Amino acid sequence: MSTEDRREQLLDAGVELFGRRPYDEVSIDEIARAAGISRGLLYHYFPTKRDFVVAVLRRAVDVVTALTAPDPELPPVERIDAALDAFLDYAENHAAAYATLFTTRGGGDPEIRAVMDEGRERRVDILLDGIAGQLLADGSAARESPVLRSAVRGWISFVEGMLLRWLAERDLDRDQLRVLLREALIGAIAAAGRVDPRLGLAAGPG
Amino acid sequence: MSTEDRREQLLDAGVELFGRRPYDEVSIDEIARAAGISRGLLYHYFPTKRDFVVAVLRRAVDVVTALTAPDPELPPVERIDAALDAFLDYAENHAAAYATLFTTRGGGDPEIRAVMDEGRERRVDILLDGIAGQLLADGSAARESPVLRSAVRGWISFVEGMLLRWLAERDLDRDQLRVLLREALIGAIAAAGRVDPRLGLAAGPG
Repeated sequence: MSTEDRREQLLDAGVELFGRRPYDEVSIDEIARAAGISRGLLYHYFPTKRDFVVAVLRRAVDVVTALTAPDPELPPVERIDAALDAFLDYAENHAAAYATLFTTRGGGDPEIRAVMDEGRERRVDILLDGIAGQLLADGSAARESPVLRSAVRGWISFVEGMLLRWLAERDLDRDQLRVLLREALIGAIAAAGRVDPRLGLAAGPG
Repeated sequence: MSTEDRREQLLDAGVELFGRRPYDEVSIDEIARAAGISRGLLYHYFPTKRDFVVAVLRRAVDVVTALTAPDPELPPVERIDAALDAFLDYAENHAAAYATLFTTRGGGDPEIRAVMDEGRERRVDILLDGIAGQLLADGSAARESPVLRSAVRGWISFVEGMLLRWLAERDLDRDQLRVLLREALIGAIAAAGRVDPRLGLAAGPG
């Protein structure tokens, strides 16, 4: 196996492992065993467990970003729903990792924080280009408005907080959750349109 | 000074000190100096720095809860604005504490997390009773709906995420921020009303 392939395989094993159990409870030995390699070889690729955790997290952010990319073929509301469904599938299948990450925020680790913040900023850009722009009369203004960027960034926190609660309580069914998240996004974009009239908010999509 | 008074004075000094500088950068010696007592006496009240940090945080949650209590004399929108103004004042005046807390989440400390989660749940109850209930035809349904509770909990994360960004970037003026937060709350409650028709959402307040 090439170095690059081996590294990829280790990251995939990490995503699976941390998805099922909190990463602070998984030992380096377990990771090596799950990947079918020696502890020594694992250290060759990732000198510390933290290096491994950060690399797995980067991988997860890339996977989620790709999975939730808005489909330009769909009209805006369906586009939001499809991206939310893909995101909720991923979060449900990796619930342990999601809960650990968003509960502890990496225990204050600045590098883990930076990866998560980068992931959020990428998601904001994708939402501004792929969704907010469709709901505005002048889509090109979407990237230029700090008001809209703030609203979308706030909505990402909304999703994080609501999902963390949902994974623990499961007191809504998944359809209700998805519609609530979608309507909250449309509401946040509409709120931005009322605060910043230059956005030229188009009539509601519904 | 009585034991109780001294303890209160120490907590007030802590709120001020951590408001200006991240609490992980403030030493026990500085805390003792700021409160005008010996390190030994401080340890008498709070055996570890962590005990002190947790107690200061509890105090801050109590103060914010009292400051942001909705005023039942005001109509709904003004009621939200008044509570948000009080909250934003407090967050601006204690920006270092706010940024540290919400960036690091207490470095994964379970007790700090528990205090923050308790604070959020109290705020959810207050918002359900004092604000969401006013916007619904049947205000008494507000406490019973997991959909509405989720939406309000999500909005609290929305505020946390947006405010953290705003304290770092300051790219909106404060009025824009307040209106955006208010409209997002009204939007989240309206979204809950669409998902859970038993809420009997009243016509919009505006």
